[in-house]
Amino acid sequence: MDENEFIAALRGLPLHKGARGLRDDAAVLALGNQVFVLTHDMMVEGRHFLSSQNMADVAWKLVATNLSDLAAKGAEPVGVLLGHMLGNGDADFVAGLDDVLSHYGVPLLGGDTVAGDGPRAFGLTAIGRASHTPVPSRAGAENGDALFVTGTLGAAMLGLEAFQAGTGGDCTAYTRPMARVAEGQDLAPLAKAMMDVSDGLLLDAFRMAEASEVSIAIDSAAVPVADPERRIDCMTWGDDYELLFTLPEGTYPPVPATRIGSVEPQGFAALFLDGEAITNPEGLGYLHK
Amino acid sequence: MDENEFIAALRGLPLHKGARGLRDDAAVLALGNQVFVLTHDMMVEGRHFLSSQNMADVAWKLVATNLSDLAAKGAEPVGVLLGHMLGNGDADFVAGLDDVLSHYGVPLLGGDTVAGDGPRAFGLTAIGRASHTPVPSRAGAENGDALFVTGTLGAAMLGLEAFQAGTGGDCTAYTRPMARVAEGQDLAPLAKAMMDVSDGLLLDAFRMAEASEVSIAIDSAAVPVADPERRIDCMTWGDDYELLFTLPEGTYPPVPATRIGSVEPQGFAALFLDGEAITNPEGLGYLHK
Repeated sequence: MDENEFIAALRGLPLHKGARGLRDDAAVLALGNQVFVLTHDMMVEGRHFLSSQNMADVAWKLVATNLSDLAAKGAEPVGVLLGHMLGNGDADFVAGLDDVLSHYGVPLLGGDTVAGDGPRAFGLTAIGRASHTPVPSRAGAENGDALFVTGTLGAAMLGLEAFQAGTGGDCTAYTRPMARVAEGQDLAPLAKAMMDVSDGLLLDAFRMAEASEVSIAIDSAAVPVADPERRIDCMTWGDDYELLFTLPEGTYPPVPATRIGSVEPQGFAALFLDGEAITNPEGLGYLHK
Repeated sequence: MDENEFIAALRGLPLHKGARGLRDDAAVLALGNQVFVLTHDMMVEGRHFLSSQNMADVAWKLVATNLSDLAAKGAEPVGVLLGHMLGNGDADFVAGLDDVLSHYGVPLLGGDTVAGDGPRAFGLTAIGRASHTPVPSRAGAENGDALFVTGTLGAAMLGLEAFQAGTGGDCTAYTRPMARVAEGQDLAPLAKAMMDVSDGLLLDAFRMAEASEVSIAIDSAAVPVADPERRIDCMTWGDDYELLFTLPEGTYPPVPATRIGSVEPQGFAALFLDGEAITNPEGLGYLHK
């Protein structure tokens, strides 16, 4: 059973209507007069982080990637739960956790610690409160919307390369990604569709188009990239955690962002890059297999 | 850094006031006019389950142990998030997840799936809504309270032995433990202190006494055990997930439960077993190291 089969099998279970699956948007849970956003991500040694990385950075990334999922929903983080496998560098891990929780003003609520052999695995659950309802989703894009992205894409890729080169270059975009928590809350009342760009711009735009049953046209020259000579790499690399969102034509984003394309009626391809149809997500970004 | 040092280091972090640490009670989080209870447990292959076990039972236990943490708070479960490392037996895992979620009427909200090599690790976050405030904790026991426990202790031990013997004996108490969710909600308005007995009756009673700054006296002959010839084993084995609670003297429990002792003023030992002082938790149950 591969991941897609596993997730398909889960759809037969008692599922909350706010649960869009284990790989899509964070869960949205209305309880009484409040709406909560919940997300859980795991990181495994050798897959999601390198054994040679500082564990403080691993802790930072574990929290930041989950906060990014909340950001894409315009949610205000209210706390996190940690699943921690004990091992080397735990003092660094705690220091990095302190850094990221202090930076975002989010408390640790609890969790679990376990002993383990072999590759280490960590889990983090982030709980947020929706700042605006309806909560934005990747499925809300409509024909005529304008497509925007925050920040610069490819910065994490360059950061990883700097880390691997080991020559002292700046690798913080890879080791300590920033979640766009404040921007997400500013955008939530305006955005028609919103998601974070965790797996690469083109793949995530493809997914937004499919979920929204539209086509998305991207002008690659407009995309802000960290290395213009490697524009496609920057658009297909993941780990940047910027926000991808659509606004009705004529609405200007309330946060720094770049217009990179438009939403069109659903055509024969989910994505058009500089007019070229892309019908298959293979090769567009980080596919979980 | 061992687990105790790791948890001690976490106490320097931004901690929610409802967070009593990563090994103690579930977190209690008041948001608006509602109170939530949150818990996260990990299970690692070879430590918390045997590689030879049916993965359907592993899924059941992963959920049931977290629901037991909610039960101890009198919380109504509202959903779970799953962190799943893909591997053998995933179809069975989904079937067991279906069983346990259907049994307790709890929806899957979302989560994450990861690939991994080596021993498998799973995480589960359970979210509950408090049915009564203040939410019971292990710290509420007072001098003069009566001490009760639900069910029978040692059943999981006999179940594991039956499983290991492989001769077809009933092992469900070990493989598919029941969380006392309904009982916890019935007890929440009355219990002075409450916790689940995950690590063994004596160890958990010791912890309740320490948290409540009292001494607890247990009459071992009164403890309902699955095997009277191995009374001490039954009281020190874990995995039973019964509820241990105190009530004011003269209050009768609203659910089936057995009176097994009394709460006394804090003496020189946290626990007295048949009058014998126990000052050191070593050997009382499953200590996480």
